[in-house]
Amino acid sequence: MKHLLAVDWGTSSLRGALLDRHGKVLQERTFARGILTVPPGEFATVFEACFEPWTRAAGTFCLISGMAGSRQGWVEAPYCACPAGLDDIARQLVWVTPGCIAIVPGLRCEQDSIPDVMRGEETQVFGALQLLDLRDAVLVLPGTHSKWVRVASNRMEHFTTFMTGEFYALLRQHSILARTLPGDDGDLDVDAFNQGVALALHSASLLQTAFSARTLSLFERLPAAALPSYLSGLVIGEELRTQPLEAGAQVVLVGADTLTQRYELALAQRRVPVRRVGQDAAWRGLWAIASALSSSPTGIP
Amino acid sequence: MKHLLAVDWGTSSLRGALLDRHGKVLQERTFARGILTVPPGEFATVFEACFEPWTRAAGTFCLISGMAGSRQGWVEAPYCACPAGLDDIARQLVWVTPGCIAIVPGLRCEQDSIPDVMRGEETQVFGALQLLDLRDAVLVLPGTHSKWVRVASNRMEHFTTFMTGEFYALLRQHSILARTLPGDDGDLDVDAFNQGVALALHSASLLQTAFSARTLSLFERLPAAALPSYLSGLVIGEELRTQPLEAGAQVVLVGADTLTQRYELALAQRRVPVRRVGQDAAWRGLWAIASALSSSPTGIP
Repeated sequence: MKHLLAVDWGTSSLRGALLDRHGKVLQERTFARGILTVPPGEFATVFEACFEPWTRAAGTFCLISGMAGSRQGWVEAPYCACPAGLDDIARQLVWVTPGCIAIVPGLRCEQDSIPDVMRGEETQVFGALQLLDLRDAVLVLPGTHSKWVRVASNRMEHFTTFMTGEFYALLRQHSILARTLPGDDGDLDVDAFNQGVALALHSASLLQTAFSARTLSLFERLPAAALPSYLSGLVIGEELRTQPLEAGAQVVLVGADTLTQRYELALAQRRVPVRRVGQDAAWRGLWAIASALSSSPTGIP
Repeated sequence: MKHLLAVDWGTSSLRGALLDRHGKVLQERTFARGILTVPPGEFATVFEACFEPWTRAAGTFCLISGMAGSRQGWVEAPYCACPAGLDDIARQLVWVTPGCIAIVPGLRCEQDSIPDVMRGEETQVFGALQLLDLRDAVLVLPGTHSKWVRVASNRMEHFTTFMTGEFYALLRQHSILARTLPGDDGDLDVDAFNQGVALALHSASLLQTAFSARTLSLFERLPAAALPSYLSGLVIGEELRTQPLEAGAQVVLVGADTLTQRYELALAQRRVPVRRVGQDAAWRGLWAIASALSSSPTGIP
């Protein structure tokens, strides 16, 4: 493999990076061409239009993670079962163009007969582990559907999804609270955020705590401008409350700074130290999968 | 007092009943004229148009509960603090027309510096207590904002709001689950409902359990037609999970049958027996408040 074209094709955006044989990022591109914008049968055309100069170079191998492998995506890549390591994922790639373009499978796990799934986050997890040189970790990938992941001996053992970002957006935009909250979220109000986290950590359910955003505003104990931060603290605190974390246990936060900073603040209330990895975890993860593939008997040259 | 015109004026509907001096309901009327449909300054006009024949009769006293007493309503009736009994409420009526039309105040309570409020449910609570001849009870008033109420010696000691109905609607209409759920809720699928309740009772947060509606559908373990009932079980089960109910403790459910039936099913999983009271609790409650007022030195004739 001369170059790797690493692609993260999600629901709402399409990101790509060109990596050299050592995994170094040479160039990056982002397009507002998430899979929801692509009509069925048009994935190859969109892909070519976005990355044509890179794909033309001889010896470029392309690996795609994310929702492009879902039923609504380019080619469906069935979920790989947990526990799973890099080798398992590399073995279950789905080829769009044999030897040239492949799609990374998502992962699934199950607990008490309830399945859970991810697509794209598995790549970030393995990238983050390599960047931090870890083989055992608890990782959190905040977002619309936040993931808590447990890795042991470099294999993903189990993970859990929380609809944290989506609940925030639902309450923010469509609930009775939307009438009170200002149009713009504004900068994070750290005190209001921490107040929301503290309440959620000591309460039983967001069904109850969410109403406090209304009553604190009604009795003028929180200004409207502080409510988005307070609500953000409530939902993130609710997610954290469910986790049996021991004091001193370390958590790896993977994602955009604006989100991982909030989780770091919230985890500080439980005295949990963090390490943070940015969105380049996806590139490193795709490079790690390509490397695992190269070293396998059926791998790419 | 010859007749009582009992009015429940909420956010989305306006209901009224004419009661004789013994509290018997003679006639009822319902209008799609919730306070959100009434422009400021037009409340008297709307009220007259809806109830004119009843108000013209000599000796008719009118008592209004619900959001008509909110800041956005006819006349603001400040919240009455808990613990509160019928006498406290009767003393804090706000008169629209002295001696003729009065608005029932809502209630407020506070725990750990977080206020909680209700408007209209207090009237249903006191009505339900009279109908069942109870002075001590735990009551649940399911709805958009569900209320759990503790009454001791005929005084409301404390209550808690859960945004259960609103969360259901948000998830149903605006979340990623909306794409999978059928357009119509259909009849209740009792098995799917119970499955949702059971999961919620043994889980830590709706942020996590809500995602199971998606994965169970993805792996074809629940048909799309069963998902609304399953989701309803998840949110109602989440509400119940937070309650420290002992087995055998009785709960009084107040409200429309379609909702109280679901709560009865869910509470059965915790072996909690129920008694149910319908929406006539509001009429009985308004009659009880009017009676408390009549017997006070400053009361109506």
